[in-house]
Amino acid sequence: MSSKILLIGASGTIGQAVLANLAARHEVITAGRSSGAQRVDFAQPGSVEALLKAVGKVDAIVSTAGNLHFGPLAEMTAEQFNLGLQDKLLGQVRLALLGQHVLNDGGSITLTSGIVGIEPIRNGANATAVNAAIEGFVAAAAIELARGIRINAVSPTVLTESMGAYGPFFPGFESVPAVRVALAYQRSVEGGQTGRVYRVNG
Amino acid sequence: MSSKILLIGASGTIGQAVLANLAARHEVITAGRSSGAQRVDFAQPGSVEALLKAVGKVDAIVSTAGNLHFGPLAEMTAEQFNLGLQDKLLGQVRLALLGQHVLNDGGSITLTSGIVGIEPIRNGANATAVNAAIEGFVAAAAIELARGIRINAVSPTVLTESMGAYGPFFPGFESVPAVRVALAYQRSVEGGQTGRVYRVNG
Repeated sequence: MSSKILLIGASGTIGQAVLANLAARHEVITAGRSSGAQRVDFAQPGSVEALLKAVGKVDAIVSTAGNLHFGPLAEMTAEQFNLGLQDKLLGQVRLALLGQHVLNDGGSITLTSGIVGIEPIRNGANATAVNAAIEGFVAAAAIELARGIRINAVSPTVLTESMGAYGPFFPGFESVPAVRVALAYQRSVEGGQTGRVYRVNG
Repeated sequence: MSSKILLIGASGTIGQAVLANLAARHEVITAGRSSGAQRVDFAQPGSVEALLKAVGKVDAIVSTAGNLHFGPLAEMTAEQFNLGLQDKLLGQVRLALLGQHVLNDGGSITLTSGIVGIEPIRNGANATAVNAAIEGFVAAAAIELARGIRINAVSPTVLTESMGAYGPFFPGFESVPAVRVALAYQRSVEGGQTGRVYRVNG
């Protein structure tokens, strides 16, 4: 059954793969900071609100967006740490909190965390905290969402497509191609589970 | 061996028990929002910086402080959610980030999360996210801290002393008296482990 799906972060490596997967069977409205049918920026106040107002009722909301702070703990400031809190964490939480009211009955929300949430790497204290918080939020929100609305997270490991840039930060981690990560989003959107973290760890 | 310990949140139920435990063997400098030898408020910019400057070098930093937002998911706003991020999460993270530079070699940082981080309750989406983030931060910071400095978290369940006020929000949870929770802080401060979450679940 075809659904209307809002995909935030559609131009990223994961987002493109998710779009290719979901668009085969659903109507997908793409949104992104600098491309997509709609514009949205987690760092801008009112941006998520404006997006949801423009899009109207949907059956699923999928986020593959969000920035983090990476850097050595010895030099990290609370202000830098807060950047990741405000963007990848609060941006996605805001999307879910507002999104619950624009979803049709039985709809779903799928957020993105990341393997660093449970497998810390050097320079990644902000990423571990933010990803763990997203997974916590999903677990907690799942027990309160009404009208059969579900919420899950996808936690990908480092992407094969990103190994050139990020590989040195993930020593010994197995990468996965984005097309495999996209399957986890499909499971979340088209499956029946809630409060789940779909880990794609290679 | 006696150490110099900075205890933030010393007037709370847990803080009092931790103070009673640690003060038997160590020099403890108490700090709190409205009481203690020093004043500090996680919600006030510059407050943690001023505290650490006033206290100087210490062997251990212990936080039993931090506010969260509790409320129904259906009515929760991103702004309310951010209150918990800025207070219990970023307040303690700031304490750790700044604290790493005022700790003596081999010193320790002990933060407080809470059982809701892994056991969601209704109205607790912010608490689950914040507590999970604190535990994530501790796990990640532990692999980067220098000079033998350790970091752990204590995750208490609902306190026996707080069951009158909070019991209805924790149906079927076993409570523990604060004196037992205080033992977990002692283990963190006087033990040799790092990156641990000490769960006191009843």
